[in-house]
Amino acid sequence: MATKHVYLFGKGITEGGASQKNLLGGKGANLAEMARRGFNVPPGFTITTEVCTHYYANGRKYPTTLKADIRKAVAALEKSTGKKLGGDKNPMLLAVRSGARESMPGMMDTILNLGLNDVTVEILKKKSGNGRFAYDSYRRFVQMYSGVVMGVERASENDEDPFEIILEEARHARGVEHDNQLTEEDLKDVITKFKKLVKAKTGKTFPTDPYEQLDGSVGAVFNSWMNERAILYRKKYKIPAEWGTAVNVQAMVFGNMGDNSGTGVAFTRNPANGTDEFYGEFLVNAQGEDVVAGIRTPLKVQLMANTKGLEHCYKELCQVRKDLEKEFGDLQDFEFTIEEGVLYMLQTRNGKRTAQAYVKVAHDMVKAGLMKPEHAITSADPEAIEQLLAPIFNQGAYAAAIKEGRRLTKGLPAGPGAATGTLWFTAEKAEQGAVHGPVVLARIETSPEDLRGMIAAAGILTARGGVSSHAAVVARQMGKVCVAGAAELNIDYAAGTMSCGGHTIREGEFVSINGSTGEIFAGKIDTAPSELIQVLITKTLAPKDSELFKCYDFVMKLADKYRTLGIRTNADQPDQAINAVAFGAEGVGLCRTEHMFFEGDRIDHVRELIIFAAEYAEYKDKASAPGADADKLKNEYSVAIEHFTGALAKLLPIQQKDFEGLFEAMADKPVTVRYLDPPLHEFLPQSKDQIDGLAKKLGVNFDRVANTIHGLHESNPMLGHRGCRLGIVYPEISEMQSRAIFRAAIAVAKKVGKAPKPEIMIPLVAFDRELQLQLEIVHRVAKEEMKAAGKKIDYKVGTMIEIPRAALTAADIAQTAEFFSFGTNDLTQTTLGMSRDDSGTFLPFYERPDVSIVKSNPFASLDQSGVGRLMQLAVEGGRQTRPDIKLGICGEHGGDPSSIDFCHRIGLSYVSCSPFRVPVARLAAAKSALKNAPVAEVKKVAPAKKAAKPVAKKAAPAKKVVKPVAKKVVAKKPVAKKK
Amino acid sequence: MATKHVYLFGKGITEGGASQKNLLGGKGANLAEMARRGFNVPPGFTITTEVCTHYYANGRKYPTTLKADIRKAVAALEKSTGKKLGGDKNPMLLAVRSGARESMPGMMDTILNLGLNDVTVEILKKKSGNGRFAYDSYRRFVQMYSGVVMGVERASENDEDPFEIILEEARHARGVEHDNQLTEEDLKDVITKFKKLVKAKTGKTFPTDPYEQLDGSVGAVFNSWMNERAILYRKKYKIPAEWGTAVNVQAMVFGNMGDNSGTGVAFTRNPANGTDEFYGEFLVNAQGEDVVAGIRTPLKVQLMANTKGLEHCYKELCQVRKDLEKEFGDLQDFEFTIEEGVLYMLQTRNGKRTAQAYVKVAHDMVKAGLMKPEHAITSADPEAIEQLLAPIFNQGAYAAAIKEGRRLTKGLPAGPGAATGTLWFTAEKAEQGAVHGPVVLARIETSPEDLRGMIAAAGILTARGGVSSHAAVVARQMGKVCVAGAAELNIDYAAGTMSCGGHTIREGEFVSINGSTGEIFAGKIDTAPSELIQVLITKTLAPKDSELFKCYDFVMKLADKYRTLGIRTNADQPDQAINAVAFGAEGVGLCRTEHMFFEGDRIDHVRELIIFAAEYAEYKDKASAPGADADKLKNEYSVAIEHFTGALAKLLPIQQKDFEGLFEAMADKPVTVRYLDPPLHEFLPQSKDQIDGLAKKLGVNFDRVANTIHGLHESNPMLGHRGCRLGIVYPEISEMQSRAIFRAAIAVAKKVGKAPKPEIMIPLVAFDRELQLQLEIVHRVAKEEMKAAGKKIDYKVGTMIEIPRAALTAADIAQTAEFFSFGTNDLTQTTLGMSRDDSGTFLPFYERPDVSIVKSNPFASLDQSGVGRLMQLAVEGGRQTRPDIKLGICGEHGGDPSSIDFCHRIGLSYVSCSPFRVPVARLAAAKSALKNAPVAEVKKVAPAKKAAKPVAKKAAPAKKVVKPVAKKVVAKKPVAKKK
Repeated sequence: MATKHVYLFGKGITEGGASQKNLLGGKGANLAEMARRGFNVPPGFTITTEVCTHYYANGRKYPTTLKADIRKAVAALEKSTGKKLGGDKNPMLLAVRSGARESMPGMMDTILNLGLNDVTVEILKKKSGNGRFAYDSYRRFVQMYSGVVMGVERASENDEDPFEIILEEARHARGVEHDNQLTEEDLKDVITKFKKLVKAKTGKTFPTDPYEQLDGSVGAVFNSWMNERAILYRKKYKIPAEWGTAVNVQAMVFGNMGDNSGTGVAFTRNPANGTDEFYGEFLVNAQGEDVVAGIRTPLKVQLMANTKGLEHCYKELCQVRKDLEKEFGDLQDFEFTIEEGVLYMLQTRNGKRTAQAYVKVAHDMVKAGLMKPEHAITSADPEAIEQLLAPIFNQGAYAAAIKEGRRLTKGLPAGPGAATGTLWFTAEKAEQGAVHGPVVLARIETSPEDLRGMIAAAGILTARGGVSSHAAVVARQMGKVCVAGAAELNIDYAAGTMSCGGHTIREGEFVSINGSTGEIFAGKIDTAPSELIQVLITKTLAPKDSELFKCYDFVMKLADKYRTLGIRTNADQPDQAINAVAFGAEGVGLCRTEHMFFEGDRIDHVRELIIFAAEYAEYKDKASAPGADADKLKNEYSVAIEHFTGALAKLLPIQQKDFEGLFEAMADKPVTVRYLDPPLHEFLPQSKDQIDGLAKKLGVNFDRVANTIHGLHESNPMLGHRGCRLGIVYPEISEMQSRAIFRAAIAVAKKVGKAPKPEIMIPLVAFDRELQLQLEIVHRVAKEEMKAAGKKIDYKVGTMIEIPRAALTAADIAQTAEFFSFGTNDLTQTTLGMSRDDSGTFLPFYERPDVSIVKSNPFASLDQSGVGRLMQLAVEGGRQTRPDIKLGICGEHGGDPSSIDFCHRIGLSYVSCSPFRVPVARLAAAKSALKNAPVAEVKKVAPAKKAAKPVAKKAAPAKKVVKPVAKKVVAKKPVAKKK
Repeated sequence: MATKHVYLFGKGITEGGASQKNLLGGKGANLAEMARRGFNVPPGFTITTEVCTHYYANGRKYPTTLKADIRKAVAALEKSTGKKLGGDKNPMLLAVRSGARESMPGMMDTILNLGLNDVTVEILKKKSGNGRFAYDSYRRFVQMYSGVVMGVERASENDEDPFEIILEEARHARGVEHDNQLTEEDLKDVITKFKKLVKAKTGKTFPTDPYEQLDGSVGAVFNSWMNERAILYRKKYKIPAEWGTAVNVQAMVFGNMGDNSGTGVAFTRNPANGTDEFYGEFLVNAQGEDVVAGIRTPLKVQLMANTKGLEHCYKELCQVRKDLEKEFGDLQDFEFTIEEGVLYMLQTRNGKRTAQAYVKVAHDMVKAGLMKPEHAITSADPEAIEQLLAPIFNQGAYAAAIKEGRRLTKGLPAGPGAATGTLWFTAEKAEQGAVHGPVVLARIETSPEDLRGMIAAAGILTARGGVSSHAAVVARQMGKVCVAGAAELNIDYAAGTMSCGGHTIREGEFVSINGSTGEIFAGKIDTAPSELIQVLITKTLAPKDSELFKCYDFVMKLADKYRTLGIRTNADQPDQAINAVAFGAEGVGLCRTEHMFFEGDRIDHVRELIIFAAEYAEYKDKASAPGADADKLKNEYSVAIEHFTGALAKLLPIQQKDFEGLFEAMADKPVTVRYLDPPLHEFLPQSKDQIDGLAKKLGVNFDRVANTIHGLHESNPMLGHRGCRLGIVYPEISEMQSRAIFRAAIAVAKKVGKAPKPEIMIPLVAFDRELQLQLEIVHRVAKEEMKAAGKKIDYKVGTMIEIPRAALTAADIAQTAEFFSFGTNDLTQTTLGMSRDDSGTFLPFYERPDVSIVKSNPFASLDQSGVGRLMQLAVEGGRQTRPDIKLGICGEHGGDPSSIDFCHRIGLSYVSCSPFRVPVARLAAAKSALKNAPVAEVKKVAPAKKAAKPVAKKAAPAKKVVKPVAKKVVAKKPVAKKK
């Protein structure tokens, strides 16, 4: 690690900048950047993430020099503020906050007003001339510190926070409702009681030495990196524990110094829908936590224009809003405090937003020249784009609900979309309820403890808190439907009821919410396809009538400009393929022919085939023996021959028809057809009645069918007689499939004038010779059919790589294969020796943070060190033999962004995923292309210029630190091993 | 390929030598070598194996220059013999024979007397003054050529060979028994009929042009490389089809020119038991095929000393016998022909022999300085050494059979050992019978068509043919018990009976044979352990009383001198381990602890554990949740806790006891203990009664047990919850096993004063973290137990590499693992995606010569290109992290010679196999070490010196062409990829 552990920022000297997010965390880097760019930031310093990493790698011990470094930084702060930590003249008070590389709102701990004790509080009182303010600050500090650093238990399920009980008693005694109505004397009494409580609970005296307070606070923030909710959050968002958090120590500014003070949080645009409007909230005479915690419902920021003593601040804020977007090139989420009429910026960061807001903001800001198009892509959360496909209320059902008077009230629209589900009031109940169907979690206000319930819920509802409250921020990020701050709701945890205007809903009953409008309804409301689906799939909405579509389309086209990976889809039916094309698919990467086998009557033919397969194979075996009497054998096995070949003959035109549909839908595009893959027993009935029915249909006796089923039983069907092993033993099946494909291709070429491009894919190949034998059939049939029709069809032949041996011997297999498609579902099962179906008994345990054998489910996100290594070997082997070999992936990982990134890095030609994942894949592929493009080395951050002027943006443009990312095909390079 | 296709040999010029077996085949190389060394070899030339390879690689087309090359070689032959092919003065007659790199006796075709036609036969008659001889030669030629080259069908199941029918008619008309009693006129008539038959069957006229005959014959020999029995033979002996055969064309010499002519085959020592005695047979006035085919029972070679006109030849032969061993350094199997008193050598090669003969000959010849010790090892067939462990007759049962008068007769002892089984007369019936138990195949004489039946049989019995007959040669090679030429037996195929001296045995009844003595018995005779087993295992025979043991021990010690691979054994019980040590094992490479779980009462404890495991896991999960009420939970789950931990407590001392036994048996040696591996359901009962019984024993209700069994069902148990996945979810089990191991080790160390060296092996690791978690337990328990006992135990920790991911991430896993042991059973299943249990439906098809997807069963012999590649990656990865990592193999491949060779080449430290395979492994490892030792380049073969003197050995010693192989650790080098 670097030896520099502490970076100063603020007026005078700023050592860091926005490019150092990995080292300084998001908050620290942006504070430095703001200071550097002339925004009025209270001075402070950042302790780097490396210290956190060191701390955990060394049994929770700090680097030896850290204490001295902090002392030095405090001295510098003292110099720049002219105050002194613990000083009895002009004491400096500090805020200590976490700040990881990626924002983890509310997950870690914060300490404010550090430096107060019985001595300094009196000086603060004197200097501010406001005793109530001084003692309220002291009260807050003691309360926070006791909980966070000293470990006095705070909230529990029923809000029996012991500190709150003391405060409640004080309010009761004084006969007031709010804490800010308590007097100085009340607060002194509260503080004394707090300290007694601490002594009683911990046996320790509350510390008076500000340096002791500082060390304790820094330690607490580092420790909170490993608290349960932070771990859970990281798991959900796949943030590695190794990143660690930085700690930001900053001079306090006070929003609670009277009515010309205040604090707020704001977004430069609406983060729920992307509208270009100032979107924020503030509280007069309050500290920041009051806004975020959702205890007091704050005011819309626009109201500040009319708030006495703050009018000029509103003007400044409107300018800040514009400057921030210009300087940071994205929608910003910022915090500010006004101390006696002076505006301070406490934080800015790229704002989390819904997918709807993402496409809208990207469209608007790129078009306005405010955002770099590359940034629009690299900042995307591809996974989130699926939110745009989430349902909305069905119009008729909605109208009916209104008519029936089921609308209870309206809250703040905090997470768009519609949700209907059973109502639950605790995270635990919501989790349990979600097992049975969608649930809505309703809380008076949410806290980080509710995270599990929020993950489980389809919708989130709160009675208190604004659009920046915990619930709103987290819901937006998760893409959950959310209505926040519906103040009229009366939620009674104890009674298990939620009531409003005469309606009462009990836990377990249905409720419906619209996160785009804020409406809340009793009972169910049916949902309807999203706007995007209406434009692209159902075509019930014209593209021009949808602003959302316009923005989505803009972003997708942008993505297509950058991505180098092709995007295909896994589709077995024409309608699936058509949908996928609407979403942007450029071909079919996997058509599973056996899915066609199950429909309608055809399953009977398939079953007929299977029932007589073994006997037919026996016949062929005997007939191939030297000196066999062909005529005698034909006679002996006539029944089996007739049924087996008869069934194939019946299946041929059916399969041909299926392929025609698919080929027509994809004419001119490549269509990868996989030959029969599953073990035969999957096609047979299991129940006695069904077996009996089948036997009667085929005119054979019950036992024959039952015996066939019994004979096909396998101990490990996953590793049994399936894939090309079927086509090897029954080449007639591969021949039938080949014939169906070529006849269909020829028919479509003749009909629509555009030839489809079949890519014939042999599954489960482990030996090059298997592929050779199967392709001999394909090429022979192709020749026959093309000759018969007098029409040439351009086709390719290849194999799935889904068995480790195939990857290991790829150089041999590429002798015959023109393409490889990685079947990562099976490849994961075989490479890990882990059956997906059976892993439920141990894999969840493996994912537990304390066990941490796997970082994420390897069936969802590619195991890059294991399966990925095999893929690399296969890519190398394949290219060695056939430099222009086409390489794709058709496992479910083809729709997973991190897996797509891996596929890009190892140089695949395309990914194939389910139709509805195509937009996700397009965006992920583009992001990966940009991320992995060669970038000019980041220049060393220049020492900060002296900044002045409180808030107004400095004219001097910031030095560009990162060169624009060129679109470029990524050079092949070894993929870094994931640790 | 080289452009030289034809190599001359014989008097005058010899272009090849013994070192060119790959190019010239065994026969061709040794003919050249004999000529070079002055033995009297009829001149000829060899068409190389490369021509054969070219022929098959190019759609059965020859190199363009071949025809001219053959013409040139014929011209040279004509010059050296002074005869002319097709000449009307002094016609040259030729023999055309196959000759592969490894001898494949009787599998391919031969043509003799080539060059005869209606013209040349008359000249031959004139020159030999023997019309009967001339026409008999012609008859033989026409018969052979018609069958082999022109494809007229020869024998079928009931000996209805159409040529034999014609001959039989002739013998009948003449009223004689043997062909050699037919007159010249009879033979002329037979020849005419033969030619008519050919015309009728093929529509073609029998060729008269000797060159046409020659070309046809060469083609027929090359074609016979791909005949069914040759393919089957190669499959059994793992001879690659790519090797091809050479063709030897040689001037005919005639053993049928009268009573001073003859022919014979002989071994320089007894190939059945290795005794130093001249062991051969001859026929007066006969051609070679008569001896080999077993049609006439030949005379012992010693009788030649008293055969008028051949006495001097016997003397020469005795000298040849000595010279051959001296020149070729091994027991020789040679063919000779005497033409009118002149001895010609037709062939010599290292003689196939039984394992008993192998150790005896190796011992005797090495000690006598006749054989190089390295050759004793490199020439070994390690697989065959298992024959020494095959049973012999139980002495009491044998005595009883004699007393009961069940001994029918005595034949020639042609393959040692005792066999008892049902009697069958055809290959097909023997194959079918073998499904139900051991069978004895009895034939009047065997032919290559009987190969399948011989493979299936425990013993082989013939009524005709000597110790060099087809039956005897093939049986010896296969290590089958064989009695040949029991002339008194009357085998009646049609009646299905075999009778002798009043006894009649029907097909399907029992018969017993002793291949060491030649005795044949009616009925069963119980068998007893082999002599070696009596010395090593039952200790019922003192080593000094066993000549066999002395020789075996000599060879094994020689092997140990050369091998670099360690040999361990897979043993779960002390007695297995003790046996393995007796066979030479140096440690236990795999102790499967779960095998201990099934014995006696303990299975009940195991079942108790399993029945309560899921509930116990649930308890632990809840107890680990934050804020869990430990006491309440303990109470709630008290039953499960009590049973689960109680069962473990009961198992601990039992496992400890088991380990104590094993450790004591192996004190001072390493013992690799694998932790619990199979899925839990394997321990549970399946039948309703058993379930009921278990439920009653455990005092729980039936449903609970039944539900547990149901809940443990997996769709692919091979890839399910097993191996370390059990120990991860139930660390208590790993803890119990660890404690049992260390307590046992400590107890044994204290008791016998020698500490065992446990090597603790975690199964089924796929992720490094799995191993870490398991080893945390091992190391903790080790520390605890060693501290408690005040005794240090030297132990190692490691893992099985049996999942592709483990091999791929070996570098990571080696961070914690001190050793790897390749579990190639599972590694093969996962790497090939092929379940061993389910592969029966397609793997036999894959092995079919015409399909040839796999060359041999990958579960028996390591798949070197796939699984082997992974092993290499793991070796590289492991060594990269930990250069001194110990590497072994414990899959069943550890006892397979070709797999052992691979293990040697990739640099493993040891192989582990079942106790009875240890001698095989020792020999295979030594062979591999010698084979892979760096060898000085083979010198170019010097042009032959002019040889003279008919037979007597030339004095000039042959130039050494191959340097002695030094024992040397083989340098690591990439293993050549198998094609």
